[in-house]
Amino acid sequence: MGNCADCLRGFFCPPKNTNIRISLPAVCFVWQIAMIVLFGVFIRYDAESDIRLWLQLKHTNNITSDIENDFYFRYPSFQDVHVMIFVGFGFLMTFLKRYSFGGVGFNFLIGAFGLQWALLMQGWFHALDPTTGKISIGVEGLINADFCVAASLIAYGALLGKVSPVQLMVVTLFGVTLFAVEEYIILNLLHCRDAGGSMVIHCFGGYYGLTISWILYRPKLHQSKRLNGSVYHSDVFAMIGTLFLWMFWPSFNSAITDHGSGQHRTAINTYIALASSVLTTVAISSASEKRGKLDMVHIQNATLAGGVAMGTAAEFMITPYGALIVGFCTGIISTFGYLFVSPFMEKYLKIQDTCGVHNLHALPGMLGGFIGAIVAAAATEEVYSREGLIETFDFEGEFADRTVGTQGGFQAAGVCVAIAFAVVGGAVVGLILRLPIWGDPADDNCFDDEVYWEVPEDEEGIPPVLEYNNHMTHKHQDISESNFSVEQS
Amino acid sequence: MGNCADCLRGFFCPPKNTNIRISLPAVCFVWQIAMIVLFGVFIRYDAESDIRLWLQLKHTNNITSDIENDFYFRYPSFQDVHVMIFVGFGFLMTFLKRYSFGGVGFNFLIGAFGLQWALLMQGWFHALDPTTGKISIGVEGLINADFCVAASLIAYGALLGKVSPVQLMVVTLFGVTLFAVEEYIILNLLHCRDAGGSMVIHCFGGYYGLTISWILYRPKLHQSKRLNGSVYHSDVFAMIGTLFLWMFWPSFNSAITDHGSGQHRTAINTYIALASSVLTTVAISSASEKRGKLDMVHIQNATLAGGVAMGTAAEFMITPYGALIVGFCTGIISTFGYLFVSPFMEKYLKIQDTCGVHNLHALPGMLGGFIGAIVAAAATEEVYSREGLIETFDFEGEFADRTVGTQGGFQAAGVCVAIAFAVVGGAVVGLILRLPIWGDPADDNCFDDEVYWEVPEDEEGIPPVLEYNNHMTHKHQDISESNFSVEQS
Amino acid sequence: MGNCADCLRGFFCPPKNTNIRISLPAVCFVWQIAMIVLFGVFIRYDAESDIRLWLQLKHTNNITSDIENDFYFRYPSFQDVHVMIFVGFGFLMTFLKRYSFGGVGFNFLIGAFGLQWALLMQGWFHALDPTTGKISIGVEGLINADFCVAASLIAYGALLGKVSPVQLMVVTLFGVTLFAVEEYIILNLLHCRDAGGSMVIHCFGGYYGLTISWILYRPKLHQSKRLNGSVYHSDVFAMIGTLFLWMFWPSFNSAITDHGSGQHRTAINTYIALASSVLTTVAISSASEKRGKLDMVHIQNATLAGGVAMGTAAEFMITPYGALIVGFCTGIISTFGYLFVSPFMEKYLKIQDTCGVHNLHALPGMLGGFIGAIVAAAATEEVYSREGLIETFDFEGEFADRTVGTQGGFQAAGVCVAIAFAVVGGAVVGLILRLPIWGDPADDNCFDDEVYWEVPEDEEGIPPVLEYNNHMTHKHQDISESNFSVEQS
Repeated sequence: MGNCADCLRGFFCPPKNTNIRISLPAVCFVWQIAMIVLFGVFIRYDAESDIRLWLQLKHTNNITSDIENDFYFRYPSFQDVHVMIFVGFGFLMTFLKRYSFGGVGFNFLIGAFGLQWALLMQGWFHALDPTTGKISIGVEGLINADFCVAASLIAYGALLGKVSPVQLMVVTLFGVTLFAVEEYIILNLLHCRDAGGSMVIHCFGGYYGLTISWILYRPKLHQSKRLNGSVYHSDVFAMIGTLFLWMFWPSFNSAITDHGSGQHRTAINTYIALASSVLTTVAISSASEKRGKLDMVHIQNATLAGGVAMGTAAEFMITPYGALIVGFCTGIISTFGYLFVSPFMEKYLKIQDTCGVHNLHALPGMLGGFIGAIVAAAATEEVYSREGLIETFDFEGEFADRTVGTQGGFQAAGVCVAIAFAVVGGAVVGLILRLPIWGDPADDNCFDDEVYWEVPEDEEGIPPVLEYNNHMTHKHQDISESNFSVEQS
Repeated sequence: MGNCADCLRGFFCPPKNTNIRISLPAVCFVWQIAMIVLFGVFIRYDAESDIRLWLQLKHTNNITSDIENDFYFRYPSFQDVHVMIFVGFGFLMTFLKRYSFGGVGFNFLIGAFGLQWALLMQGWFHALDPTTGKISIGVEGLINADFCVAASLIAYGALLGKVSPVQLMVVTLFGVTLFAVEEYIILNLLHCRDAGGSMVIHCFGGYYGLTISWILYRPKLHQSKRLNGSVYHSDVFAMIGTLFLWMFWPSFNSAITDHGSGQHRTAINTYIALASSVLTTVAISSASEKRGKLDMVHIQNATLAGGVAMGTAAEFMITPYGALIVGFCTGIISTFGYLFVSPFMEKYLKIQDTCGVHNLHALPGMLGGFIGAIVAAAATEEVYSREGLIETFDFEGEFADRTVGTQGGFQAAGVCVAIAFAVVGGAVVGLILRLPIWGDPADDNCFDDEVYWEVPEDEEGIPPVLEYNNHMTHKHQDISESNFSVEQS
Repeated sequence: MGNCADCLRGFFCPPKNTNIRISLPAVCFVWQIAMIVLFGVFIRYDAESDIRLWLQLKHTNNITSDIENDFYFRYPSFQDVHVMIFVGFGFLMTFLKRYSFGGVGFNFLIGAFGLQWALLMQGWFHALDPTTGKISIGVEGLINADFCVAASLIAYGALLGKVSPVQLMVVTLFGVTLFAVEEYIILNLLHCRDAGGSMVIHCFGGYYGLTISWILYRPKLHQSKRLNGSVYHSDVFAMIGTLFLWMFWPSFNSAITDHGSGQHRTAINTYIALASSVLTTVAISSASEKRGKLDMVHIQNATLAGGVAMGTAAEFMITPYGALIVGFCTGIISTFGYLFVSPFMEKYLKIQDTCGVHNLHALPGMLGGFIGAIVAAAATEEVYSREGLIETFDFEGEFADRTVGTQGGFQAAGVCVAIAFAVVGGAVVGLILRLPIWGDPADDNCFDDEVYWEVPEDEEGIPPVLEYNNHMTHKHQDISESNFSVEQS
């Protein structure tokens, strides 16, 4: 029943120890305790969530209604973003036939860890009161923490199935740290606008993950090829992720834009761009198969490219047809990416990108940054009004004299900063992850929940996929007798 | 392994060409480019989403807070509606064992196309500035576009598994167009109230789909009978759709009602009616099986009938117990529809209604229209106050003199207009779809994702359903060698 | 194929009649009609959802904007709570391999019934106008009804797979009634604060279900052991429930807290506590398996313990690091519960707790109540300000003189009241449910959708699980010939 040819290939591999019984609990406990200490030292409620300060603020500013609390401006969008991070990204990564637990489960783990670290890192850069030394958090801080985590989850998409949860914690720790610095440079020093994070989230997160994947290149990954694909129902699960991302992307881009017309316009632009992406994705997907059949990979991913690419420009007056054009082009580009660029990258650039984050995040994010630069540079007082220009681009304080042309230039520079942080940071993190201490799986054992999860038997007997898998991996039995005993949860 | 009897039946069928490699991309591209041009000519931000106009509006109307922007009144409801359209309708249609990709995927495609066309069509009728010739869009426009698309998606429910995606694009193009005209007549000329669209969405969409299905009657559809049913997990997927529709229906009905008590009351009435539907659906479903076992088809669909039937009356003062009674009756009627009317329609009226949209949308929608007429006619100044009557029924301008009795009559007339548009429009569209150019599947090849999707193998070998399918359809191999090669996505 | 040994065990069991064709429809109809009558007598719109009263209120109170309507403060949170009740609880209970229909379907049924009865019961205690004898309902009433139902759904978690839907209706009828009385005592008489319901919802609901399960102890439940576990995709479905509960728990706890900083702070605290729970759950789950593998049962459940435990204290000034500590500890405690307490309870206390509600709800809820008591007792004017203390703890009217110390004592007393109601009420309800009239399944027939649902065949032939099942249960065929004929839905 099966032959041992595949196994012989593995015979001379150094055996991998995927036992994470010490490392994973240790990392979780140490980091969670560190969070408690740091939160204790630094983090406090802001003036809109602290009862004393809010009553004081109402009194001082003569606020007559509680509805003026920022909570009511941003909480619905926050919850939509939260769904995108945990259900959207999580379920998008359930598409593999035997890595759905890892897809949604590790996404959950690193999301929950990352957002705590993000509250601290972003707080130090953006919300630190210099007199008290405390960070104030409110609903906008929660949204930003979710955004920050998104970049690391995007990086996870490139690594899906090939790394251990401990490695993912490291990816997230550094990812959040790099993000906070990069974001500070782009938003505060360069004074770019990037509400939906084309540059700071998608472009950074995508290239960060790709660089790590490049450093962790596995030449024998084809040994896990049998598991690197979907089954019928795993593709349907992934559509849950796709749709929640697609539907709530208008909230993602508008969650932290200006109150009033800012949030309103951003949501409209994103909604329109996403609709356009769907049609061009379907068109290219169908045109690329000889019977015109659609590929679920494209529908699950490239349909979202319009939202990524509008991350910077959606809050500007890009016009509705401008939004349509952005969605139109990025849908095409992203689908072509899945068809041609991903295979090319894997074959020639040695970059194994499980979810194709290059095509969904890195490239559309980069394009989105440049689109934002162009739309910013093209802004006029006629369209925005003087007051509107100031509000939209925040031309105040030391930036009061900046022209829209200069702003466009800085926006473009922001893209470069994001890429630079991603590549350099990713390389360093990748090298750290090559240390043989993290419990990552062997090349013939990737994309397999068996390694890190207690997986239930599916029917009376041992299901075919698992049986094959057991066979493939028996060489590791000297390390662990228990690894391949299928247990019922 | 299997015999060829079924196949011989198909031997004399005209072979069907389901290759859509030219037609689907062509339609997507042409229509998307047309959208860009038309958006460029016509569509602009409205006064609450344009930065210059919003600042001006705040100044002119002395608006002190951005929270007065319509975005904050309607955006949470908009997102709920958006979830209903894409996850609700989409997953409700995943119940077939081998058409889940088509159910959720084509719903996604035609939703994304339809909403763009809807922004234009509804804009021309409702939001065209005669001096500038431009359409203004804001969050209410987005909600209306989603509503407009809903009617076409309902029609898709009747056609599920029997048409090609190109045909669905045609159904949607005409569906949205007919909707906009019908809606203009009902809401503007007849001055009906129909916030949740019992008439304009559900009744119209249902009969539109049924008429098309009638014209496209397939006498040999039983040849696909093996695929016209669910498996265990596809029924669980469909419950995702059911529950998101059920939970968010209060948002659907209240999304565009009057600010303040209007939205509040509509949400309450819908919530109550839906709860009542669940109990009577369960009761009838159980009573109709000899062991009292429940049927998932009923639970997935008839539980929603109360929401459909409250689409018109929910914004009126129908009282909470009135809402309960509406849910009570429509739950019963809808379940009886699945038990008796659908089989009757298929056998005697030659209407094949895959999802039973007659029982969930057409009939409860029609009833909802009449319920609205009765509740409107019964309105009194005592209950509403004079000012309240004017606000609720918009008795202003040329309609200032209308009595509630007259209003009731016009509401009832609205139902007839919706049905007339649905039947006549559906007949025309059905005839167009009978042209042999659309790539629709053969009678023995319906309800099968293999035709339009690259479907992954489910296990090591070829799964039973697909194997059987391959066997059934080998007669088409002269048209395409590739149709039945199972490829891994 | 298989042997009859299992069957012989059942040979001397009294045969169970699971035919609910009379009882289920009868209960649904009678109760739904009773609801209509009682709603007709008692329930009316409140001043913010009644058109006449709202216009009057705006006039009287000089309200200039409709945005001041409570709908805009609470509706987004209401919808999140609604998703938790129906998708969150519903899908969390789909984890069993062959009870997903029952998990999500009966949750739907008893949720829809319970919320109607809750509107009445809670209305009588909290919103009855003594002059008119009418109950006023608005969006806060809907949220409270959902909350009230939650307690019964938690109880369902302990009973999952072992009771009939008719029994569940009884559990809900009594559960809602007990809840309303208990809540009145705790919130009104003891004047406790418990916005997120650690005490009134989770502690009560958990112990209520456990007590019923104890009374209904099935010594031969091991005969259904083959079905008391998950399969791969049922565990993924359950993650949908987990994530929607986890993401929306900030809305659950903040839905009915004070406008302004109250809702804002509650959401932040809950968000933080939940993040912390995830890390400690992962740590303990990994540390408890010899290879460090994670157990889906823990990830699906214990990650939520932080939300439960913050139900009382989240609206207080617990500080962000306080919230982290709560999540840290309850994640550990809850996972240990699944590892050690549940097996102990089943073996020695004769309590069979299918979903482990003890570890997710009862225990963390009880802890949450005591945490609330401590945080309340530790409140100071320095932190809250005098005005803030009054607003947060509602120290008004007859409670104007209460100190925070006293408040802490009463909070702790509240926990005891909740447990007392749960245990006494649960015992009574359990005894009622032991009457042999409810159609509950035999010991070897639990956890099986076949009993109450028409279940589709999964493939061409009869799937292994069902075949085994048919075999196991043929002794019941004298009661019903049709029970085991697998029908296609």
